[in-house]
Amino acid sequence: MDTFGRMWADLAPVGRHPATGGYRRYAWTRTDAVLREWFRGEARQRGLDVVPDRAGNLWAWTADPDTAADAGRPGLAMGSHLDSVPDGGAFDGPLGVVSAFAALDLLRSRGLLPWRPLGIVCFGDEEGARFGVACAGSRLLTGVLDPDRARGLTDDDGTTLAEAVSAAGSDPRTLGRDDEALRRVGTLVELHVEQGRALAEVPGDRGAVGVASAIWPHGRWRLDLLGRADHAGTTRLADRRDPMLAFAAAVQAARSAAERHGALATVGKVRVRPNGANAIPAEVTAWLDARGREETDVRAVVAEVGTAAGAVPVEESWTPPTVFAPVLRDRLATVLAGRDGVPAPVLPTGAGHDAGILSGAGIPTAMLFVRNPTGVSHSPAEHAEPADCRAGVAALARVLEDLAC
Amino acid sequence: MDTFGRMWADLAPVGRHPATGGYRRYAWTRTDAVLREWFRGEARQRGLDVVPDRAGNLWAWTADPDTAADAGRPGLAMGSHLDSVPDGGAFDGPLGVVSAFAALDLLRSRGLLPWRPLGIVCFGDEEGARFGVACAGSRLLTGVLDPDRARGLTDDDGTTLAEAVSAAGSDPRTLGRDDEALRRVGTLVELHVEQGRALAEVPGDRGAVGVASAIWPHGRWRLDLLGRADHAGTTRLADRRDPMLAFAAAVQAARSAAERHGALATVGKVRVRPNGANAIPAEVTAWLDARGREETDVRAVVAEVGTAAGAVPVEESWTPPTVFAPVLRDRLATVLAGRDGVPAPVLPTGAGHDAGILSGAGIPTAMLFVRNPTGVSHSPAEHAEPADCRAGVAALARVLEDLAC
Repeated sequence: MDTFGRMWADLAPVGRHPATGGYRRYAWTRTDAVLREWFRGEARQRGLDVVPDRAGNLWAWTADPDTAADAGRPGLAMGSHLDSVPDGGAFDGPLGVVSAFAALDLLRSRGLLPWRPLGIVCFGDEEGARFGVACAGSRLLTGVLDPDRARGLTDDDGTTLAEAVSAAGSDPRTLGRDDEALRRVGTLVELHVEQGRALAEVPGDRGAVGVASAIWPHGRWRLDLLGRADHAGTTRLADRRDPMLAFAAAVQAARSAAERHGALATVGKVRVRPNGANAIPAEVTAWLDARGREETDVRAVVAEVGTAAGAVPVEESWTPPTVFAPVLRDRLATVLAGRDGVPAPVLPTGAGHDAGILSGAGIPTAMLFVRNPTGVSHSPAEHAEPADCRAGVAALARVLEDLAC
Repeated sequence: MDTFGRMWADLAPVGRHPATGGYRRYAWTRTDAVLREWFRGEARQRGLDVVPDRAGNLWAWTADPDTAADAGRPGLAMGSHLDSVPDGGAFDGPLGVVSAFAALDLLRSRGLLPWRPLGIVCFGDEEGARFGVACAGSRLLTGVLDPDRARGLTDDDGTTLAEAVSAAGSDPRTLGRDDEALRRVGTLVELHVEQGRALAEVPGDRGAVGVASAIWPHGRWRLDLLGRADHAGTTRLADRRDPMLAFAAAVQAARSAAERHGALATVGKVRVRPNGANAIPAEVTAWLDARGREETDVRAVVAEVGTAAGAVPVEESWTPPTVFAPVLRDRLATVLAGRDGVPAPVLPTGAGHDAGILSGAGIPTAMLFVRNPTGVSHSPAEHAEPADCRAGVAALARVLEDLAC
C-alpha cells in the first residue's frame, strides 16, 4: 500500500480550501491542470501511454489498445474522476483513480500478465460544478452531450466552456463523440466511495466493498423566477412581485413532493439578482436536483415543484436509469465473495457516475463501492477508513485478475 | 435648468451596468472615487470649499462655516448621496445632490445673498450595499456607528471597510464622530425621489413635491442557518439537515408576519455555501429587512421570522422612528404652498435616509420628496419626470430663500 499512501499524500493539498478544508477542483481551471499533470506523472512512472480523447478525458494504457481491439481483445479500463463539487471531500473521484493505479501495482507485484490492455481513465468534469452539466466528459465522449451545446455552457463568471478549454491549452473545436476511444474499452470498472450508508449497515469485513446494481434516474432542472426589483422599505406588500416567495414555495414543494413519491429532491443552488438586503429581487434562479427509483416518480416531483413555483422547470440534464450489465455484476459479486462463499453486497445508488454514462452507451460496465461510515459525501467530512480503502484496492486487483489475466 | 441637465448627463454613465441598465455605485470603490471627483469638480466650478469630515462625507460650503457658527449663524446644508444599491436607479441619491447644486445656481442667478453659509453635502455609503450598514457615513458622523465596528465590517469578498478606505487613499484611523463638522450644520434639507406612490396619487402640480413627516423605524437582521453538507443524490430525506428548508420558512414567515402586523418585511439577499446544484447546503445566510409604523410591530415581525427559521436574528442595523422637526416641516409645507394657499403634501416614508440620522442627532432636519410616478425604486426602472425634477429644484431654491436669505 505504499504507492497508495504516496499518491494520496500528493493529491491531498491540491485545490484544498484552507478555511473550509473542502476541495474546489473545478473543470478546466489551474487546479484541474495540476491534477491532470499528476495523472500523467503517475502514468509515466508506470510506463503507460496517456491518450486524451476528444472529450477531455485522459486514458493511460499498458499496451496499444487499438492493436488489441483489432485483435478482438479490447482493453479493460478502470478509474474515475479528479474534479470535485464546491467544498467537496477527498474521496469522491480520486479514490477510484488512485485505487486503479494501486491495483495495477499490486497485480504487477504478483507477476501476473494480462492478456488484454489495462487502462486507467481520468474522466473530466464529472461533477459539473463549473458548467452545470454533470458527467460532461463521458457525455461528450459517448455523444449524449452535443458538442455545440457543451461549448456554449457558461460558468458563473460568464466564461464559456469553449473559452475555458482554450485557456487550458486544449482545442475546443475537437470536442465530441470519440468512437476510436470507445472502441478501445471492452469493459469499464469504476471504483467509488459509497455516498450512502448501505455498506455501513453490513457488519464486519463483508461491508468493506460492494458491487453496484443500478443508478437511479436523475436530473437537474433550472427555475427562472421573475419578479420586479423594488425598494424593500417603501413598496406595499400588495404592490410587490417578489420572486423570493416563489423560490420558498419551490424549496418546500421539493421536500414534500419527494416525501410523497419516495424520491429525493434538493434545491442546493440559488442565484438572486440584485441580491441586496433592501431590494426586492428582480429575479431568482434556482436549481432542482431530483432522483428516484422510477422515472415517473422523478417527473412527478419536478412537475409539482414547477407548479408550486409558478414556473416551467428547464431541464439542464437528464440521466435515464442505469442497470449495470447483470452478468458482469454477478461475476464481480462472486469473485469478491467472502471465505464463506457469500457474494459481495450488491446495492443501487442515487448518484450519477461516468460508469453509468458508458453503460448507457453499450459498454459492459461495473462499479465497486467502498464503505462510507457516515454516508456523508460532497462535504469536507466525507470519509472512508484506510482499511476499507485497502480492501477496495485488493478487490479491484482481484477483478483485474479475473477479467484480464 | 441647463446646469441640472449637464450634471445629470455627466453622472449618467458612471457605474452603469451595460446589461441591466442599473447602477452599481458602491462605497470606497473606483466608481465611488469618480463620483467624489465629480462632486469636487462641481464645487470648484462654483467657488465652494470642499471639507471632508471624519466619516467619509464631503461638504462644500459657500463661506467659512466655522466662523459663521461662532457668530451664531450656522450653515444651511442640503444634499444627499451618490452611492447606489446593486442595480439601483439613477435618482435615489443623485437627484438630491444635483438639485442642491442647481438650486444654488438658481438662487445666485436671482442675485440673492444668503445671511448664512450654504452647504452641499455628499454623504458616503448611504445604501450599505457593500458593507451591510445603511447610512454608514451619517451614522459614523453622529457617533451612532462605532468606528471600530465600522472598520471591521467586511464586504462579500472579505475586504474590510478599513482596507477599502485605505485603498481609496483615505485614513481609516480617523473615522468617527465629528463634532466640528456637526456644529457647522444649523439646518439640513435633503431632497430625494419619493420611493412610494403617495405623491403620484395627488393630482396635478400639487403632487410634484412633498415634505416628509417621519421615517418609520426600520432595521436589518442576519439569519445564520446551519445545516450539514451532503450529497443531494444519496442522502435519505430523514438523514438530512438542509438549511434551505429553514430559509424557505423564513421567507414565508416574513411575508405573513408583515401582513398580520401591517408592516413591511423582505428577504432580498441570501448567501448559500457551497451553492452547488447537487450538494445539500452546509449553511445559508439570509438578510431580513423589516419596517413598520411602530417599533413593536417591527420587533414582532423579526421575532416571528426567527422562530420560523429556528435561529436568533442578529441585528446588523436599527434605526428608531424619526419625526422630522415639526416647526420646520410646517414652515416648508407653507413656503411650498400652491397659489391657492393649500400647503404642500406632507407624507411619511418607510425608507431610511441620512437626514433621519442627523435628525436623531438633534439637528433640525427636513426632507423634500419629488414625485415618483410608479413608486418603483432600487431598480433600473426608477423614474421621475423632468418637470417634477425642475419643480424640486425650484422648491429647494424657495426653501433656501426662506431659511437663508
